[in-house]
Amino acid sequence: MTDLTRAYAETLDAADPLAAFRDRFVLDPTVTYLDGNSLGRLPASTAERLRRAVEEEWGAGLIRSWADWMSLSAEVGDLIGTGILGARPGEVIVSDSTTVNLYKLAAAALDARPGRRVVVIDDDNFPTDLYVFQGLAAQRGLELRIVHTDLDAGLDPGALRAAVDTDVALVSLSHVAYRSGALVDMAAITRIAHDAGALTLWDLSHAAGSVPVPLSAAGADLAVGCTYKYLNGGPGAPAFLYVRSELQAALRQPIWGWFGQADQFTMGARYDPVPGIERFTVGTPSVLATYAVAEGARIVAEAGIGRLRAKGMALTSYLIELADAVLAPLGFSVASPRDAERRGAHVSLHHPAAWQVCQALLHRNVVPDFRTPDRLRLGPAPLYTRFTEVWEGVDRMRAIVAAGEHERYPA
Amino acid sequence: MTDLTRAYAETLDAADPLAAFRDRFVLDPTVTYLDGNSLGRLPASTAERLRRAVEEEWGAGLIRSWADWMSLSAEVGDLIGTGILGARPGEVIVSDSTTVNLYKLAAAALDARPGRRVVVIDDDNFPTDLYVFQGLAAQRGLELRIVHTDLDAGLDPGALRAAVDTDVALVSLSHVAYRSGALVDMAAITRIAHDAGALTLWDLSHAAGSVPVPLSAAGADLAVGCTYKYLNGGPGAPAFLYVRSELQAALRQPIWGWFGQADQFTMGARYDPVPGIERFTVGTPSVLATYAVAEGARIVAEAGIGRLRAKGMALTSYLIELADAVLAPLGFSVASPRDAERRGAHVSLHHPAAWQVCQALLHRNVVPDFRTPDRLRLGPAPLYTRFTEVWEGVDRMRAIVAAGEHERYPA
Repeated sequence: MTDLTRAYAETLDAADPLAAFRDRFVLDPTVTYLDGNSLGRLPASTAERLRRAVEEEWGAGLIRSWADWMSLSAEVGDLIGTGILGARPGEVIVSDSTTVNLYKLAAAALDARPGRRVVVIDDDNFPTDLYVFQGLAAQRGLELRIVHTDLDAGLDPGALRAAVDTDVALVSLSHVAYRSGALVDMAAITRIAHDAGALTLWDLSHAAGSVPVPLSAAGADLAVGCTYKYLNGGPGAPAFLYVRSELQAALRQPIWGWFGQADQFTMGARYDPVPGIERFTVGTPSVLATYAVAEGARIVAEAGIGRLRAKGMALTSYLIELADAVLAPLGFSVASPRDAERRGAHVSLHHPAAWQVCQALLHRNVVPDFRTPDRLRLGPAPLYTRFTEVWEGVDRMRAIVAAGEHERYPA
Repeated sequence: MTDLTRAYAETLDAADPLAAFRDRFVLDPTVTYLDGNSLGRLPASTAERLRRAVEEEWGAGLIRSWADWMSLSAEVGDLIGTGILGARPGEVIVSDSTTVNLYKLAAAALDARPGRRVVVIDDDNFPTDLYVFQGLAAQRGLELRIVHTDLDAGLDPGALRAAVDTDVALVSLSHVAYRSGALVDMAAITRIAHDAGALTLWDLSHAAGSVPVPLSAAGADLAVGCTYKYLNGGPGAPAFLYVRSELQAALRQPIWGWFGQADQFTMGARYDPVPGIERFTVGTPSVLATYAVAEGARIVAEAGIGRLRAKGMALTSYLIELADAVLAPLGFSVASPRDAERRGAHVSLHHPAAWQVCQALLHRNVVPDFRTPDRLRLGPAPLYTRFTEVWEGVDRMRAIVAAGEHERYPA
């Protein structure tokens, strides 16, 4: 039987080996933030790092500072790739948005499998991923083979296996599902794809910084992900992309630009991409935004993905225990895998009035997220979220629904 | 006969109606900056605006601030479109990099002219533009019809006219050439393209904020441009794109993403782009970087493109007069149109040791730019550059070459 008291949450906080990392972030003690998987908190060092970049590097250094800025995207890419994801140096780079990166790598993969015209995705992939593939399918006459995924339980590897044959060029999935938080077995799926001669392209947006991402160990081919969730890079921060070293020279992405060009400032008349990861970049990267990514990612790397994973499992397990005990009688039910090994660091709850409950919580300074059709999504990011915040969030939900307070808000 | 004294430059500064705008920028008085067309200076207000965005909107507001951020790209787009370019509201939006935008709009234009397989460009277009079209040509089996442009004098409209026939889907040129500064007659070229049933796609990177860009008046179809040059948006700042209102609903760009989607947060399963300019955006925009663009662009709009154009012509004419009188005897020659009406706000000079002269100038705190093969490119951005800075730059060049100081630097 779970101890339902706030005091118990306090004992969990007192035993948290990551507790000190909370001080590395800017915090408003009046807000209970359970949406770190939508937008990570502001690191305490970011404002000062940006001020230096703006005033000293841009303002005083002017164009001369490009001597330092040229390598920034690759350096921050390596920080993420080797410090947070299981990639090797030179396999990850910061670039563009997640969607643009997905388009580039998907097109590169399709070009590398010219005889094949099927892409396998699942129907619970993030909408922008679905849209990118719908666009590519329309442009290239591809077949999109869409595996049905249970929105609570996550992908069934058996259903995926049944969809993958030798017509398949590419399998593209989210490592952690955006609604349910269900975690996919990257190694198992990669084996299924590779056995059929297909490539894999992972969306790591909800995985980077929340779970170990075994890119090298699984032999994953390609990946993209965003940096504004668990990596705390700031709103709309530039995304990252990963290409397995062995594939880089053979792959060519479709948007040929001068930041992918060998001897860029020779300004040669013919596109001749560099051999390394930079060939998957395009135009001039946002220096300021990339510095913000570095600040956020550095703290994640320092905390270590092993400890973050352990705390993420503990936080979400605690949340589910409280929800079962306190919220289930009020019409809530768990919309995420119950096995902590099978989910990332966020949990969704069904409630028929989820949208209204969400509005009522915001009014009470608890920040959750709503996801269609009837889900409250709760992302207690392990780097800075206390067990007491989870307790408070659940307690507010209970109080709101018990009092019918949510009914004041439009449905 | 030109007055070659520094005192004369001082009288020009004293009469400059834009002189007060210099105070709106962070300035190091020891640096003579003649590279505002590579990276614009830091506006004095940018650091504080970013601090507010970081600490108040991100740090305190967290995910809730998206209520304000959602419209930011379109708002700053309108500031640029209506305040600086000759576009109408809803025709310009801030998005991605210039290269990614060029790819999106070029692909959209090609899809809109399905029976035609020729793209006309010129060989002095910026390298990343050439690369984008080489990529599209390779992917789609297009013919790239490349008009030869004199690297000093700029595009010959007659040569362009001869290249455009009814096989042409798209004509894509820079409004201001990146090396010579040569200015193209947008209305005349647009007529040539439209007479043949082709669309036009302009690269405004060196034009936005330096010359009037008559998008509506010329009936231009599509354009892209960067914000880190004359718009002072900061290193690698997000770019903008323009699509003529009447074309928007019919055009569809190839990278289908959730920021182009109608009812974005309904997370519908099928891509259904919004009717307006947002359909040409893709993923989550960088909020911080877009705020920096707004700060820089606002000052340009306030100064007014008419006054900026007048001062840009005066600064570059003065530079050419000094170069003819002082630098020509030392082996320099003008590599830009001599008619101020036919160039933008930068001027290039040939010198056989241009690279070495460039290094020597940097050592003496004068910041020019080098462009292949033998050009010093000088961009005295009209918003904040004094005539005395032009005088100083020329005087340093004279002193360096007269003393052979540049020969100490590697060729």
